[in-house]
Amino acid sequence: MGLTIGVDIGGTKIAAGVVDEDGNILSTFKVPTPDTAEAIVDAIASAVDGARAGHQIVGVGIGAAGYVDRQRATVYFAPNIDWRQEPLKAKVEARVDLPVVVENDANAAAWGEYRFGAGRDNRNVICITLGTGLGGGIIIGDKLRRGHFGVAAEFGHMRMVPDGLLCGCGKQGCWEQYASGRALVRYAKQRASATPGNAELLLSLGDGTPEGIEGKHISTAARQGDRVSVDSYRELARWVGAGLADLASLFDPEAFIIGGGLSDEGELLLEPVRKSYRRWLVGGGWRPVAEVNAATLGGKAGLVGAADLARQPAAPM
Amino acid sequence: MGLTIGVDIGGTKIAAGVVDEDGNILSTFKVPTPDTAEAIVDAIASAVDGARAGHQIVGVGIGAAGYVDRQRATVYFAPNIDWRQEPLKAKVEARVDLPVVVENDANAAAWGEYRFGAGRDNRNVICITLGTGLGGGIIIGDKLRRGHFGVAAEFGHMRMVPDGLLCGCGKQGCWEQYASGRALVRYAKQRASATPGNAELLLSLGDGTPEGIEGKHISTAARQGDRVSVDSYRELARWVGAGLADLASLFDPEAFIIGGGLSDEGELLLEPVRKSYRRWLVGGGWRPVAEVNAATLGGKAGLVGAADLARQPAAPM
Amino acid sequence: MGLTIGVDIGGTKIAAGVVDEDGNILSTFKVPTPDTAEAIVDAIASAVDGARAGHQIVGVGIGAAGYVDRQRATVYFAPNIDWRQEPLKAKVEARVDLPVVVENDANAAAWGEYRFGAGRDNRNVICITLGTGLGGGIIIGDKLRRGHFGVAAEFGHMRMVPDGLLCGCGKQGCWEQYASGRALVRYAKQRASATPGNAELLLSLGDGTPEGIEGKHISTAARQGDRVSVDSYRELARWVGAGLADLASLFDPEAFIIGGGLSDEGELLLEPVRKSYRRWLVGGGWRPVAEVNAATLGGKAGLVGAADLARQPAAPM
Amino acid sequence: MGLTIGVDIGGTKIAAGVVDEDGNILSTFKVPTPDTAEAIVDAIASAVDGARAGHQIVGVGIGAAGYVDRQRATVYFAPNIDWRQEPLKAKVEARVDLPVVVENDANAAAWGEYRFGAGRDNRNVICITLGTGLGGGIIIGDKLRRGHFGVAAEFGHMRMVPDGLLCGCGKQGCWEQYASGRALVRYAKQRASATPGNAELLLSLGDGTPEGIEGKHISTAARQGDRVSVDSYRELARWVGAGLADLASLFDPEAFIIGGGLSDEGELLLEPVRKSYRRWLVGGGWRPVAEVNAATLGGKAGLVGAADLARQPAAPM
Repeated sequence: MGLTIGVDIGGTKIAAGVVDEDGNILSTFKVPTPDTAEAIVDAIASAVDGARAGHQIVGVGIGAAGYVDRQRATVYFAPNIDWRQEPLKAKVEARVDLPVVVENDANAAAWGEYRFGAGRDNRNVICITLGTGLGGGIIIGDKLRRGHFGVAAEFGHMRMVPDGLLCGCGKQGCWEQYASGRALVRYAKQRASATPGNAELLLSLGDGTPEGIEGKHISTAARQGDRVSVDSYRELARWVGAGLADLASLFDPEAFIIGGGLSDEGELLLEPVRKSYRRWLVGGGWRPVAEVNAATLGGKAGLVGAADLARQPAAPM
Repeated sequence: MGLTIGVDIGGTKIAAGVVDEDGNILSTFKVPTPDTAEAIVDAIASAVDGARAGHQIVGVGIGAAGYVDRQRATVYFAPNIDWRQEPLKAKVEARVDLPVVVENDANAAAWGEYRFGAGRDNRNVICITLGTGLGGGIIIGDKLRRGHFGVAAEFGHMRMVPDGLLCGCGKQGCWEQYASGRALVRYAKQRASATPGNAELLLSLGDGTPEGIEGKHISTAARQGDRVSVDSYRELARWVGAGLADLASLFDPEAFIIGGGLSDEGELLLEPVRKSYRRWLVGGGWRPVAEVNAATLGGKAGLVGAADLARQPAAPM
Repeated sequence: MGLTIGVDIGGTKIAAGVVDEDGNILSTFKVPTPDTAEAIVDAIASAVDGARAGHQIVGVGIGAAGYVDRQRATVYFAPNIDWRQEPLKAKVEARVDLPVVVENDANAAAWGEYRFGAGRDNRNVICITLGTGLGGGIIIGDKLRRGHFGVAAEFGHMRMVPDGLLCGCGKQGCWEQYASGRALVRYAKQRASATPGNAELLLSLGDGTPEGIEGKHISTAARQGDRVSVDSYRELARWVGAGLADLASLFDPEAFIIGGGLSDEGELLLEPVRKSYRRWLVGGGWRPVAEVNAATLGGKAGLVGAADLARQPAAPM
Repeated sequence: MGLTIGVDIGGTKIAAGVVDEDGNILSTFKVPTPDTAEAIVDAIASAVDGARAGHQIVGVGIGAAGYVDRQRATVYFAPNIDWRQEPLKAKVEARVDLPVVVENDANAAAWGEYRFGAGRDNRNVICITLGTGLGGGIIIGDKLRRGHFGVAAEFGHMRMVPDGLLCGCGKQGCWEQYASGRALVRYAKQRASATPGNAELLLSLGDGTPEGIEGKHISTAARQGDRVSVDSYRELARWVGAGLADLASLFDPEAFIIGGGLSDEGELLLEPVRKSYRRWLVGGGWRPVAEVNAATLGGKAGLVGAADLARQPAAPM
């Protein structure tokens, strides 16, 4: 099958990496992320060219935040880049002269974990990516399930709270408003504002005010027992676990895999997630219960997964 | 492949039917539903024997309300029958000397609609069964997706309202507490109690009190414009549509099929369901939108689907 | 002004007590609570006669669970006794030949705490009674505010959760479904069922099953650090505090007083209540913040308050 | 008692009016609202001087959006003006040489309606002001109840939805996020975006897009039967009515009065408000039910009320 290149489009860098059939990254190349949609195509091509030097490459997989169509060719819509009905596959193929596959970035990360990470012994897994927002991917029967139109697994937009928080998607109460890095910061700000005496360490890590709290402060302070920080993680975990219980009712997977930047905290997050998940799981005493595992590939999951998907035919939905 | 028998276990009757490969029912036989778990096995055998007379049968499919394991053999748990880890396949096979497959009844109905009903031109559909409660089934890539352990598609237990109504499952806020026949009756009772002047027709169909309202009264009165009844259907539809929007974010199906007894009302229910679904659908302007269609097999979907599943190998999850 | 008698109608006993102008109880007399509405009137008269021996009494105050009219004479409705438009004042006066005042029991308890207990230095207090359910009373400008029709301060039926738990009142999401002794038991049962390993002590105090958990087990286990029990108190406290924050926005009292059986746990309950209250209080940094204090009269507040109200003219609303 | 001046501080104009003891406005004077806190004091003085010409004035009442202390002298906090612990009474008295009383603007409007408008035959009323946000006032026993610290009746910040919409106050789920002019616009935008075919008239009144919808478009279109507009009013009304039901449980008033700009729509709003109120009212069949009436003073309620409050001593809470 040969080597493929995975591309990960981040907010500041675009990374391309040569990946072998076992998920090993043989080389990487990074370029800054430009501002405009057209320049990003150029940058993707530059990154691919930078990475491919000296390797025989058979294809390219690109992970992009947004809705990707069923042909894995066109980006219907991207939240952070001005792509609307963007024929990304065709544009990049025209530059790099290699077959290109486009995939949603959370789908790519899910596939990476399934193939080479925490899910490599599973056949049916649901992956959740907890970063600034919340994304995910569905593996059923050893295949990535992309939906009939390509836009499945938008877990972050499952409505958790009727009439709840406004979401960037225009709707209200979406899961990612309660279970994401942004939500964690909101919990900490609200708590530190109400009971600053319980947040002395947390506040000392920033500018001293609740407004100055950042995500990294919360994880640092939580590890040292700062009460507001620990309580904020617990609140986050309550929402993550409640959503997993829903997904268990719907998908009945073999296992859940929790990835994304927030999963770096490990058991600080996962232990209360499992507790909440067990609390809200329907039929807990009468059914096999899916495990909740931490992702193992860290920030490489998306790049590795995208590269590997360039070798896979698309599954029907 | 030959003929198979489908068995539908209802609250008052157990029906068995001989079904051909095109979903035609060649004969049926019914027996009363007995009270005890063991007697139900006898009754299933009697119904099968009654229906098979004169036909060459190659297998039996049983649709049962409850959790069924991945081997389609054991009922982990049933809400209305005292089955706990019940080896139903083995017990019925011992009586009827035919290969038996056990399936969740809503899964069976979903399969029936997919194969011979409203979904026969679809490859990827989500079916919702709106009866006393709310069930459903998942078809992805032309296969029934049963979950890794066999208990997927428990849509009725997706949590729609945090801290919401107690459910028979022991949890709170489950979708079926807001979108089901029981919910419809509750809406009508609450409204008729608060504003009896808007429910004169509805109240006249029962004993004159809100407590005496039954589901059939509401559909009759709604068709004649009774305001409380129409508003109750709309409230039901709001919850159905909101849940479909969630399922679209998760599964991205080609189409939804709405079946079960409440779907008999047709557009009285479906028109406001579609309105609510569109309202809450995430990304509506940027993605292909799955249709919402009415089931077409009526009360036969489960029997026909169960019979047909007896011919199908189980898909992985 | 002389001595008055306060009457407290409990589930098993009716207690009458002679109370002086300083709130001292000079004597008490108890009779069993009978089953029928009419027999309860007899029992009230017996209790009054038993208590009054040897004292010069100028009036009787009766605290009754239910809606009492603005004349403090008629019980519109009682949840636990079959009183509907019951002229209780007239019936009891006919037996005891003393002026009688009827008051809602939680109002009476609030007045008792205001006059002789935790609120004796306050002019404007909101009292909350946390027992099996949740009741309360309003003191504004040194007067008990009973509402225009006599039925104010039904705090337990403030809707906290749209589409929430069914309440005995026929509505959904009432505060007392989330903040009461019954709610505490529900929290503990749900948690013990999901994570029995965290409830070993709690389960050992009953029959070993989640269903066997009682309120007294939870308080005992919580004091010894049982995790499910402590978490259940915290969940209860979250809801109590959130409701207090609402009441602060509406009434802006000088202080809150928390009474009723659950308040016996003291800081085990009050400390997390204050934390939640501060978290949800609107304008916390820009307004004086009402204190949250524990009641001090215990189970006597209602009897003492009812007796004292027999000396007070009713305030307009 | 003589004549007093009422001052209404609006977003674009500051209006002062000379008001007699019967609530008649004898003269008015308006000045533009300046940008800075200090300039607003100057503008208030100018408006008072402009209005007083030729009249013998005994006092001034100022209605200000914000928290006002119990002495009716200091503004703790104002949302739209940079007042923090602002000694407004002293500053204005220094300019106009008249006794000044400061009051929350919604309290002033409530008092105006109670004294001279829809509540003039009531003793115990709750007034709701539905404008861009939601405010209100409490009249109990013929007195304005301002709270122990002066900041009662912040109805708009009663939490209606746990984990609900973010509010400008920093909390979530506040009533005014669901029941206000801003909420109405949000409802219409969401609906017009999902089902533009039901909003043709509404969209034609603006720039043709959901984003271009303004409040005035919705009222115009609703009066002509535009479906999205009518449904948006109904959704607004559901939330208004649900909140009134809560306030009835807490305050048990004789009547509710609905004022503010949204009340100009009259029965278009009030009829569905009453329906929702009745639906959620606890104990509806067993208690006298407070009326829901429209305000009658329109935009003058605040000015007239503030003027009249300058004649009233403050009530304890």
